[in-house]
Amino acid sequence: MLMTIDLSYRPEVVELVARTELFINEHVLPVENEFRGDVTAAGGDDLRRELNAKAKAAGVFAPHAPVEFGGLGLSMSDRAPVFEAAGRSTFGPVALHIGAPDEGNVHMLAHIADDRQRHEYLAPLAAGAVRSAFAMTEPSPGAGADPNALSTMATRVDGGWKINGRKRFITGADGAGFFIIMARTSGEPGDRGGATMFLAPGDTDGIRVDRHIHTTDKSMIGGHCEMTFTDVFVPDADVLGEVNEGYRYAQVRLGPARMTHVMRWMGSAVRAQKVALDYVERRQGFGGRLADLGMIQQLVADNEIDLAAARALLVRACWELDQGSHASDSTSIAKTFGAEAFSRVVDRSIQMCGGLGVSEDLPLARLADELRPFRIYDGPSEVHRWAIAKRAVGRARKERQA
Amino acid sequence: MLMTIDLSYRPEVVELVARTELFINEHVLPVENEFRGDVTAAGGDDLRRELNAKAKAAGVFAPHAPVEFGGLGLSMSDRAPVFEAAGRSTFGPVALHIGAPDEGNVHMLAHIADDRQRHEYLAPLAAGAVRSAFAMTEPSPGAGADPNALSTMATRVDGGWKINGRKRFITGADGAGFFIIMARTSGEPGDRGGATMFLAPGDTDGIRVDRHIHTTDKSMIGGHCEMTFTDVFVPDADVLGEVNEGYRYAQVRLGPARMTHVMRWMGSAVRAQKVALDYVERRQGFGGRLADLGMIQQLVADNEIDLAAARALLVRACWELDQGSHASDSTSIAKTFGAEAFSRVVDRSIQMCGGLGVSEDLPLARLADELRPFRIYDGPSEVHRWAIAKRAVGRARKERQA
Amino acid sequence: MLMTIDLSYRPEVVELVARTELFINEHVLPVENEFRGDVTAAGGDDLRRELNAKAKAAGVFAPHAPVEFGGLGLSMSDRAPVFEAAGRSTFGPVALHIGAPDEGNVHMLAHIADDRQRHEYLAPLAAGAVRSAFAMTEPSPGAGADPNALSTMATRVDGGWKINGRKRFITGADGAGFFIIMARTSGEPGDRGGATMFLAPGDTDGIRVDRHIHTTDKSMIGGHCEMTFTDVFVPDADVLGEVNEGYRYAQVRLGPARMTHVMRWMGSAVRAQKVALDYVERRQGFGGRLADLGMIQQLVADNEIDLAAARALLVRACWELDQGSHASDSTSIAKTFGAEAFSRVVDRSIQMCGGLGVSEDLPLARLADELRPFRIYDGPSEVHRWAIAKRAVGRARKERQA
Amino acid sequence: MLMTIDLSYRPEVVELVARTELFINEHVLPVENEFRGDVTAAGGDDLRRELNAKAKAAGVFAPHAPVEFGGLGLSMSDRAPVFEAAGRSTFGPVALHIGAPDEGNVHMLAHIADDRQRHEYLAPLAAGAVRSAFAMTEPSPGAGADPNALSTMATRVDGGWKINGRKRFITGADGAGFFIIMARTSGEPGDRGGATMFLAPGDTDGIRVDRHIHTTDKSMIGGHCEMTFTDVFVPDADVLGEVNEGYRYAQVRLGPARMTHVMRWMGSAVRAQKVALDYVERRQGFGGRLADLGMIQQLVADNEIDLAAARALLVRACWELDQGSHASDSTSIAKTFGAEAFSRVVDRSIQMCGGLGVSEDLPLARLADELRPFRIYDGPSEVHRWAIAKRAVGRARKERQA
Repeated sequence: MLMTIDLSYRPEVVELVARTELFINEHVLPVENEFRGDVTAAGGDDLRRELNAKAKAAGVFAPHAPVEFGGLGLSMSDRAPVFEAAGRSTFGPVALHIGAPDEGNVHMLAHIADDRQRHEYLAPLAAGAVRSAFAMTEPSPGAGADPNALSTMATRVDGGWKINGRKRFITGADGAGFFIIMARTSGEPGDRGGATMFLAPGDTDGIRVDRHIHTTDKSMIGGHCEMTFTDVFVPDADVLGEVNEGYRYAQVRLGPARMTHVMRWMGSAVRAQKVALDYVERRQGFGGRLADLGMIQQLVADNEIDLAAARALLVRACWELDQGSHASDSTSIAKTFGAEAFSRVVDRSIQMCGGLGVSEDLPLARLADELRPFRIYDGPSEVHRWAIAKRAVGRARKERQA
Repeated sequence: MLMTIDLSYRPEVVELVARTELFINEHVLPVENEFRGDVTAAGGDDLRRELNAKAKAAGVFAPHAPVEFGGLGLSMSDRAPVFEAAGRSTFGPVALHIGAPDEGNVHMLAHIADDRQRHEYLAPLAAGAVRSAFAMTEPSPGAGADPNALSTMATRVDGGWKINGRKRFITGADGAGFFIIMARTSGEPGDRGGATMFLAPGDTDGIRVDRHIHTTDKSMIGGHCEMTFTDVFVPDADVLGEVNEGYRYAQVRLGPARMTHVMRWMGSAVRAQKVALDYVERRQGFGGRLADLGMIQQLVADNEIDLAAARALLVRACWELDQGSHASDSTSIAKTFGAEAFSRVVDRSIQMCGGLGVSEDLPLARLADELRPFRIYDGPSEVHRWAIAKRAVGRARKERQA
Repeated sequence: MLMTIDLSYRPEVVELVARTELFINEHVLPVENEFRGDVTAAGGDDLRRELNAKAKAAGVFAPHAPVEFGGLGLSMSDRAPVFEAAGRSTFGPVALHIGAPDEGNVHMLAHIADDRQRHEYLAPLAAGAVRSAFAMTEPSPGAGADPNALSTMATRVDGGWKINGRKRFITGADGAGFFIIMARTSGEPGDRGGATMFLAPGDTDGIRVDRHIHTTDKSMIGGHCEMTFTDVFVPDADVLGEVNEGYRYAQVRLGPARMTHVMRWMGSAVRAQKVALDYVERRQGFGGRLADLGMIQQLVADNEIDLAAARALLVRACWELDQGSHASDSTSIAKTFGAEAFSRVVDRSIQMCGGLGVSEDLPLARLADELRPFRIYDGPSEVHRWAIAKRAVGRARKERQA
Repeated sequence: MLMTIDLSYRPEVVELVARTELFINEHVLPVENEFRGDVTAAGGDDLRRELNAKAKAAGVFAPHAPVEFGGLGLSMSDRAPVFEAAGRSTFGPVALHIGAPDEGNVHMLAHIADDRQRHEYLAPLAAGAVRSAFAMTEPSPGAGADPNALSTMATRVDGGWKINGRKRFITGADGAGFFIIMARTSGEPGDRGGATMFLAPGDTDGIRVDRHIHTTDKSMIGGHCEMTFTDVFVPDADVLGEVNEGYRYAQVRLGPARMTHVMRWMGSAVRAQKVALDYVERRQGFGGRLADLGMIQQLVADNEIDLAAARALLVRACWELDQGSHASDSTSIAKTFGAEAFSRVVDRSIQMCGGLGVSEDLPLARLADELRPFRIYDGPSEVHRWAIAKRAVGRARKERQA
């Protein structure tokens, strides 16, 4: 019987997953639990550097980074189980340096940056010497879920560009070593296209972090920030890729970044289910183990189903990305399903644990807080559904006209 | 056309609702927002006394309390819109002295307490001079969702009883003026019945608050505590009602307490929907108001439907309680549906507000934290569903055999 | 304790409900079961006349009809439990002459018709001597969920109007004694308003039933038909109400017609739950009664909750209608929730009965077929949600501007 | 970049899928539509033979059958897209001879039957010369969802066994060329194990089909029957595999049979979505295409997500089966999710098409009837959830004890 479909992982990947799990259990979960998942309270960049050093020692640091920059150059498919293993701790991504937005920025720079930029920006980023931020989202009425609304303007000046505008929800902005700034180089807000990406060191004149937007997730170093760019000068050499091609490059980043989010947050959802299983497997009530009550079994099974489906969709999307596709559809589907499934999984896990589920005695309530934003970040479910539907209708239209 | 069904409220109630809304807007919401809904950070009992005084001045204090103790003696039906109005602020119940567990304790004492007990315990409680706690729930394997597991024992001693045992999730325990303690006076843990209620001042020897269980809700003064009762002496005069009849009395408290929870939390859910409506009604995106996008309209409509259904079930259950029924079925249904509906409403409201929805810029995320436990407190949804099903099956069996 | 809220029914109504239940059990369910719910196979109008006669004898015929026409003139509130009792059989509405579209037409004619029209049309309709149809819906691109698209035109001719156009999904058209035809008397398709209602005997020249649209529901006599109106002459005397006010009058019919649909279909959903309860209460499996398995209990309880919520929303909407309100919001909410809840209830009932649930041994599968269209008829859920959201947003806007 | 994961199909499979689609469109859908999906009305076994001949001519007949019996010996992974393509018509499985129960019986016989049995039973079955049935399920209180309740007894007689008992829901029984009968050869009803499989030609003395259980699905030839086995003699040579090992062999059949069900029914769900997409892509309303309305887009997208997730879970489960695993968990998950997802997909498709959705003008309502039983057949969702939960809890227990 000849077969093509293959869902097994190479032994090196399996082994890396095991090593990552061990590392997370030993070095990361204890810190996370001590500080109840608040990465700032736990030390912020100091903690990051400390954990990064340990991750390097354990051979689990930045496995996605290009081999030339010290990583393992894992394919998207191979990242999935490794990132999930790291994601069991909300500090795991920081520890392995595989968190948003750095992971996506490494990915994009590896695709687009020229040699000098690779040396100046990508190399230190891949090594964890600096953090980065991706400055795209803007306050209303600028670019939010609708990218065409881009309002931050880059105007031509001698030897480069001057950037002016406001940004919002810029993850990791506070303390970022450099920024990738999306700014409009042609057209008006509301027009399609006309965006360009610029690289700028964090200490460039005119870059200001106005405030942190405090959200329910607490695991991202540098927060989600509101920023102002005032006459920020970027020399031509720091234009990333071609002028006016910003959104095309953003696509390069988009699909993979969505999927690594799914991987990491899958880890948190899996952990929630483990916590709940451990609880209902021990706890007695109503004349037996909670785990033997039908309604509890339904919660357990629905969690298993949700996790399996999210993982299967992720595997599909990663494979398509590895084939060189944008995988717009399959990443939208995996992201939307995953984000919603993970919220359901944590919520059911809480319910299984009763009063303790909503308490600080267990990590579940804070995992719920950590996972809730994922239905909004990286495109709210509604925007993904809109895009999924548009493509499906478009395909139907084509078929009809064929 | 002769009609019986009447769903209108008396003018006095309508007027009280309006006054309550005004009071909440003016005196309560500002404090709540300043302290992000953390009643302890906002001053705890000091805040309570201050807000109680203002509520008395505004004529909105404790409207459910018996007339003889200075309240308005509102029926359950009439409480519904008033408590909902108060519940729009998570500090509202504390401000009006209509929060758990005091409100339920007032209700129960008014039904069961003898004259001396009314004077000693009910009068100061109704007046807000003291707070109270209801010590029933126990750590595993004691009485949790399954009341028959009651393990705290009261043994006969000269002139009264000695109580020993551990309790958990005792709301308002820290700083309570007195406790109503449920303890076993006959039978063994696992047996039905055999429970008695005891009154004990908070400073009675042997009563100890071991720790607060920190949960996602932050609006209840005195926390949810773990407690130990060690040789707590209660004189015969402080036995509440008859010996061994504790669970029968608990029934008196149970239905109404569930419904007032629904009323108060309904207020929070209504507020969440208002915040979201205000957002989508102003905010532009995708070429128009967010409020004009079909998927947003679906979220809005589902919230309206959920709120209307929860309110309609509440009205039904309150009417049955007012008729003198235990209303076990209708209160279980209203509680289960309400608790789940409110979580859905807040979650949809968050989704409508995008990134701001999960931020501290809006109160939605903390309202979600405040409402989540309601699917567990006062009986998890699963236990209510079990009871609802058992009754339905029992009725079917009777009909078949008839 | 002074109370206003009252949810009890007058003894006469309670007694009528009991009589209706008895009548349905004795005279209607046996026929329905014999013919598996296909009213045409069971005899169509012959069956109707026979059952109507029995209903008259039993004193349960057309209790909603005006007293002057031999009915009991029940309020909307009082109709609810009676129509629900009748709805337990899918033939019940035909038997009691309280089905769509006659029941709504009686209601509307009682409000709008002049004396002659009351004599000519309403009297025989109320007495069950004839059936009627309401010809409003049109094939695409005419008036469907969007009434402004009305395309059937009425043009002024000597002494009256000539009507031309096509209609679709006209319930009861085949064999109708007369039609109420909605046609455009001013403006163009797409314009708001400009509609007028016309009365026309079924044998008027130019009225043609083109075909039956066979749908999953089988209980409506006269089917759901496609029709053509070709130069149908209607004398001025048969204009119903004022010219160009057709949509205003349709409103009169709309809310109540929606609610009586909910009442009748509630009966079917309640029956489904009874069938399922009877099954799980008897059937053994997995070491006990099915009724004692947690997942079955969850299905049972969710059915109870859905039915209770639908009924509570119905009571609310009926009361508002009885107060003289259009009750657009509360009827939309009750209709949308009810239609969706009933589908869920029957689906869960099927699931509880396993293989027999999808078989003809039990009536559940055909009840599902009977109930499914209700999420589409009388406005699809999506259109109601759109209207509910628009009103909620409108109220929010007004509040903000206040 | 070294990759292992591979989700592409071999060119031969891709080509076979295309050929199957063409065949279904040309030869199968027209018949199905003419007879509204009722395979008996369309000719039953006569139709089957006619379509089988055409399928052989088109090179798409029985592609799963072993190569030695004229099939292509497709792996489970490779069957998935082919069976899905066939499943777009509810007559497709009959046409290709890949329907239940024959397909599963071929699979099982290929694994277990000895040489003589392969020649006598498997060869004609694989060639489509005869149909078969798998007689396992019994009426209450026998073996249904709970296999330990097996009550049909096989007693030792000279040269073989005598079988007595009743069976229910035996698919394809009426007209079956032979039966595979599961009967108890040791122990009592309620005991684990002790079951044996027997082969018996359809005309063996004592085999009687009592009646068809008419269910909502109409595509399976030979119906779902109630049967009685009275002193049915089976010689030792027709014992299938070892005595008392029946349930172990049933496992061989179980997982793959579940998955081929998912494949075929996936085809129906995909078809429903296509019908709906075609409708909303053409139909105008509310000032534009239905396909551009947000709530319609949500329905479209949710269908896409459900289909993608079901397919991804199927791919996973098939790969595990192809690896030689029982894949109990992944087949339970894929079956449970798939069955529920397909019902949702068809239901949403109906909703998108409004009144036509519930009419015979479109195939959607009958596809819903065809798919509904799948949440019950092959183990109700509740039983699968129970098994999924038990395994998850078992794993958690082991981990804890490790």
